[in-house]
Amino acid sequence: MPHQTYHLIYWPGIPGRGEFIRLALEEAGAKYTDTAFTETGMDEVLSFVHGKAKDDGINPPPLAPPILKHGDLVLSQTSNILQYLGPRLGLIPDGPGDPNATYRINGLTLTALDGMCNEPHDCHHPIATGLFYEDQKTESKRRSEDYVTNRLPKFMSYFERVLESESSRGSRWLYGGRLTYADLVLFQCVDGLKFMFPKAMGKLERQGKHEGVFALHKAVSDRPRIKAYIESSRRQPYSNGIYRYYEELDIEP
Amino acid sequence: MPHQTYHLIYWPGIPGRGEFIRLALEEAGAKYTDTAFTETGMDEVLSFVHGKAKDDGINPPPLAPPILKHGDLVLSQTSNILQYLGPRLGLIPDGPGDPNATYRINGLTLTALDGMCNEPHDCHHPIATGLFYEDQKTESKRRSEDYVTNRLPKFMSYFERVLESESSRGSRWLYGGRLTYADLVLFQCVDGLKFMFPKAMGKLERQGKHEGVFALHKAVSDRPRIKAYIESSRRQPYSNGIYRYYEELDIEP
Repeated sequence: MPHQTYHLIYWPGIPGRGEFIRLALEEAGAKYTDTAFTETGMDEVLSFVHGKAKDDGINPPPLAPPILKHGDLVLSQTSNILQYLGPRLGLIPDGPGDPNATYRINGLTLTALDGMCNEPHDCHHPIATGLFYEDQKTESKRRSEDYVTNRLPKFMSYFERVLESESSRGSRWLYGGRLTYADLVLFQCVDGLKFMFPKAMGKLERQGKHEGVFALHKAVSDRPRIKAYIESSRRQPYSNGIYRYYEELDIEP
Repeated sequence: MPHQTYHLIYWPGIPGRGEFIRLALEEAGAKYTDTAFTETGMDEVLSFVHGKAKDDGINPPPLAPPILKHGDLVLSQTSNILQYLGPRLGLIPDGPGDPNATYRINGLTLTALDGMCNEPHDCHHPIATGLFYEDQKTESKRRSEDYVTNRLPKFMSYFERVLESESSRGSRWLYGGRLTYADLVLFQCVDGLKFMFPKAMGKLERQGKHEGVFALHKAVSDRPRIKAYIESSRRQPYSNGIYRYYEELDIEP
């Protein structure tokens, strides 16, 4: 069972939330399939989204990708999938000495996704996910201004604080003195934000108040398997997903 | 250890996200303290929010309430706290027969919170959490129109589909044929939405396409401990938290 192939079901064409799952699988060198790169990938995504996979008799039907299939198990929600994968991929501290590590790492993950993935998404879709960006440009600009001025520094400072706390044990990682999947999540958030808001992120980097967070981003990108992954064709470029570049939203805070 | 008192740290004066935690503790008849009702409650919340609790030497510092303290453990994030409490309060299936129940119930919880708690919050704060509602009224109206027309029916239909799936095992509950904390979460979401959008929720109820979800709301409110809780002074009225009533946002879809 633990060595069964993992199957990632996610929209082809954008890194999106699927990327958080991919980074964990890649760092661990796990065997997995990915609907981003199969001929019937989009059909598979749509069969879930349209509820055709309703009655598998075991799992509650998922609402939206990312979805992970592993044996008979079907899971959705980014943080939830990562929490399932964590111990299986060696991406949380193991052993009975820290039974609550799973919750602590999940808490860090949820906070990163809230403020540095979901909020950036809403910067270009503040009114309605179902409308085009072009139909909510004015509101997007207002929201992005607030984001780069208030929210982004708040979350960057929070993670800097975590890195300076005992939780990090003097290491470059967020929890327990070793790499966990929460570090991969923060890497991807910072990476996406550097693409989306280069002016604001550049300013934060020059200010030097978040050196730990930027160093973590660099340290993850230097890990051999992550480096190989990023240089491969499996790493999809940012496009019309969560992290998007619009010149008019790239506001200097 | 398992019988130690739980300590809930949440903003006094609003039910907010703390309510999801309270309902689990109340349903289980657990012993807990609540900063909503202590003289120094606000100070305790602020000590966390302002990062004074940074170096407890064990836990990563939390960013925001709700926060749960249990013995030495300090946890944040609503779904995360519930996932920790679930097995301790008897609110997920126990026994080794379903080791993945924790992930399945967490997935349902995250989806309810996404679409029926976070999105409603953004209906009155689509531009910036740090601004007053009055400073984003126009955008709030636009976002609420989309929410009641598109998003709310989508999430209500999703949970109706879960209730009709094998996951529910023919019961009135979402997972495994018994009450879990995901049902309490959905109850609170529906309850808050009925307060916030009475016209839209009234229309959905009259249409009769989501009978399972409305029946679940009723069934939770009829449980003896929940009923006693709702009738007590511990159940705070909705005010300026997540679920707010603004006449101009109470749009008939």
